Amino acid sequence: MRVVIVGAGFGGLKLARGLNNKTGFEVTLVDRLNYHQFQPLLYQVATAGLDASNISFPLRKVFQKSKNVRIRLAEVREVFPAQHKIITNHEEIDYDVLVLATGTETNFFGNQQLIEYAFPMKSTVEALQLRYKLIRNFEDALLVKDPNELQRLMNVVVVGGGPTGVELSGALGEMKRYVLPKDYPELDFNKMNIYLVESGPKTLGNMSQESAGDSLKYLTRLGVKVLTNTIVNTFDGSNVQLKDGSTIPTKTVIWAAGVTGSVPPGMDKSSIVRGNRLIVDRQARLKGFNNIYVIGDLAYMETPKYPKGHPQLASVAIQQAKLVAKNLLKFQGNHNSFEEFEYRDKGTMATVGRNLAVVDIPIPKAFGTKLHFGGFLAWFIWMSLHLILILGVKNRFFVFSNWVYNYFTNDQSLRLIFPEFYKTAKKEQKELVVNK
Amino acid sequence: MRVVIVGAGFGGLKLARGLNNKTGFEVTLVDRLNYHQFQPLLYQVATAGLDASNISFPLRKVFQKSKNVRIRLAEVREVFPAQHKIITNHEEIDYDVLVLATGTETNFFGNQQLIEYAFPMKSTVEALQLRYKLIRNFEDALLVKDPNELQRLMNVVVVGGGPTGVELSGALGEMKRYVLPKDYPELDFNKMNIYLVESGPKTLGNMSQESAGDSLKYLTRLGVKVLTNTIVNTFDGSNVQLKDGSTIPTKTVIWAAGVTGSVPPGMDKSSIVRGNRLIVDRQARLKGFNNIYVIGDLAYMETPKYPKGHPQLASVAIQQAKLVAKNLLKFQGNHNSFEEFEYRDKGTMATVGRNLAVVDIPIPKAFGTKLHFGGFLAWFIWMSLHLILILGVKNRFFVFSNWVYNYFTNDQSLRLIFPEFYKTAKKEQKELVVNK
Repeated sequence: MRVVIVGAGFGGLKLARGLNNKTGFEVTLVDRLNYHQFQPLLYQVATAGLDASNISFPLRKVFQKSKNVRIRLAEVREVFPAQHKIITNHEEIDYDVLVLATGTETNFFGNQQLIEYAFPMKSTVEALQLRYKLIRNFEDALLVKDPNELQRLMNVVVVGGGPTGVELSGALGEMKRYVLPKDYPELDFNKMNIYLVESGPKTLGNMSQESAGDSLKYLTRLGVKVLTNTIVNTFDGSNVQLKDGSTIPTKTVIWAAGVTGSVPPGMDKSSIVRGNRLIVDRQARLKGFNNIYVIGDLAYMETPKYPKGHPQLASVAIQQAKLVAKNLLKFQGNHNSFEEFEYRDKGTMATVGRNLAVVDIPIPKAFGTKLHFGGFLAWFIWMSLHLILILGVKNRFFVFSNWVYNYFTNDQSLRLIFPEFYKTAKKEQKELVVNK
Repeated sequence: MRVVIVGAGFGGLKLARGLNNKTGFEVTLVDRLNYHQFQPLLYQVATAGLDASNISFPLRKVFQKSKNVRIRLAEVREVFPAQHKIITNHEEIDYDVLVLATGTETNFFGNQQLIEYAFPMKSTVEALQLRYKLIRNFEDALLVKDPNELQRLMNVVVVGGGPTGVELSGALGEMKRYVLPKDYPELDFNKMNIYLVESGPKTLGNMSQESAGDSLKYLTRLGVKVLTNTIVNTFDGSNVQLKDGSTIPTKTVIWAAGVTGSVPPGMDKSSIVRGNRLIVDRQARLKGFNNIYVIGDLAYMETPKYPKGHPQLASVAIQQAKLVAKNLLKFQGNHNSFEEFEYRDKGTMATVGRNLAVVDIPIPKAFGTKLHFGGFLAWFIWMSLHLILILGVKNRFFVFSNWVYNYFTNDQSLRLIFPEFYKTAKKEQKELVVNK
């Protein structure tokens, strides 16, 4: 059975590993990148706490001794469900079973200015582009004479109060406090403002009341200015326009305010629902197809427990991948009883800074709804779990070493930047010339 | 005294550190990059054994607590010796003393085809571009049907049998043997050829007879085809043209066949000598100037011991930097007895592969000219010395960890590549489409 898996994120990679060296399966794993990226720690790459390689894992290494998994470094151009094939930028690939695990991309809601000027942070490359921008701003700040321009270079606006926005603005708060004043003694970092803008009434709105409250407390402690119930209209590269008419002067907006499913071309419009996700049954099969599966962030699956679909989390993707692997193996063995998906919520968490994190763990209803931890204990749980989840002994070792180093020195040392990671906005990055 | 140092390589960085926190000096260190790069290990970044960050050291970290060293991330556009100032792409900087430590760049001898298609390896970014090319070739090789095209993708030609060429082709030989067949089981690596092309009669021609002989022996053992007395005429992106009329089909040529001094615009032509180096006296002062110094690879200094100038080695640059720092401090103290440069050769070495290296150490003439080590002992000396020379405890720890990991697993794991590191030759990297 020829199984083609598109996307090597948490879901796609887990499924390919589940089918690895199973007789009867010929697996082709297609991804744009030659490595799996551990997205939960991207924000630490952007803020120079971790190296890109620490949270990336070369796909060919995972399947080095595989007899039946082929890897193709390619982009899917179109799916042809009727002909059971996909076309990539390099070749056509036929399938018996297709699994779409392409996840989501940043949603700028069609705003061209935001697309051009705001920084997304959904990939390793985007994290490195952001690192470039953040550091380059302070280099430029050394040269400008105009106080308004200086303020623009020193302000950073993070949009979106979910885990990504909270973790990133917390990390920026720590950079402002511990690293930047030592690196740039010529600059006055009292002038640096980090804004976290959230349209809803609180940060980490999807977590428990206690966790949401703690995150706000921790962010404030780290000097982040949290603006809740605040909506960003647009950003022209120099000023953020808020819906209430006010503006924030800044050169740097990080957009963590929404995602949209990466639906490959060729899918029927009728199967696309809210959030650009593909509707699937409880076996993760695309509506109307027996040989196309969709797993992870891209899948929209309703169950009695989750009547409005599942949260877009790595753990959902991993559990769906396990289910699909199990069902495909049953199919191969001519079984007829396929299992249905039931998400087991093992908890959610987010970290704000050194010794500051929040964790919610679901508990039996008799004891309440969620068990909440904050502070050092939550931070310790967060660290340990992320270390366990990272792929590869070597990556774990290097992430751990970096964390220990950063913890004791308060000084991330990975501040090298490459001009190759200029973002699109080259016209904005035009040469800064100061007349003496 | 305002001292402006251009270039933060071995020489410039050493000098800035020598003047760090010395009263009476205002130092400005200008570099294109925000990090110092440890060039001797670039070839391991290219071959995925080390991470770029492992051999890079953020400049602002070195001078974090400095009272008198300012760093400017900028390119020098012109030097105006008469007006005691330089102009960068951002600003004008006045100096009392100027120190040029801009080193060398790759010398393609004006051959436009080589400039366009051959890969240099003088910087971290170039090493990452080369890594991208090497890995991308094998991904493309999976798709091509034409055997000639396949051969082009699988052949690699390294030009230049000096330390860089020898170390790089040795590392490629190890990749071919240990890593690539596991990563690409669909490809036949017996078809992969690594050529090392040297115009002279032997590899490592500047080292002792024994070291040169050992390097050839080790390279051959690793499967590298060494072509001595062979001159490359040009390379059109598909075939290397040799002077004897024959060709080698390949997509990848690495050019390590020569360097030329990076003389900033504004220098008098009369002070530029062979190799595009600037002629200096034994105090490293530019001919005709009392307030301009040139150190490192860019400087051409004749002494009785080195009547044809000094070798372009990190240790020469470091020793010249120490001398200039000492003399500037004497000048500040109103001394009149300035010291003259005398190079102390502590030895040279090169590594070819795992347990395979060569070391020459100068000894008193009574015992011969050089003490030669080869094999494991030389390799061990090479490793230890490079670990000591790398800047920063953290970098040392990570390089050491990577080496231990690579040694025991025979499997470099840093194979992630970013399309951002496409080389110039985009037209050659055009989409590869295979009709099924």
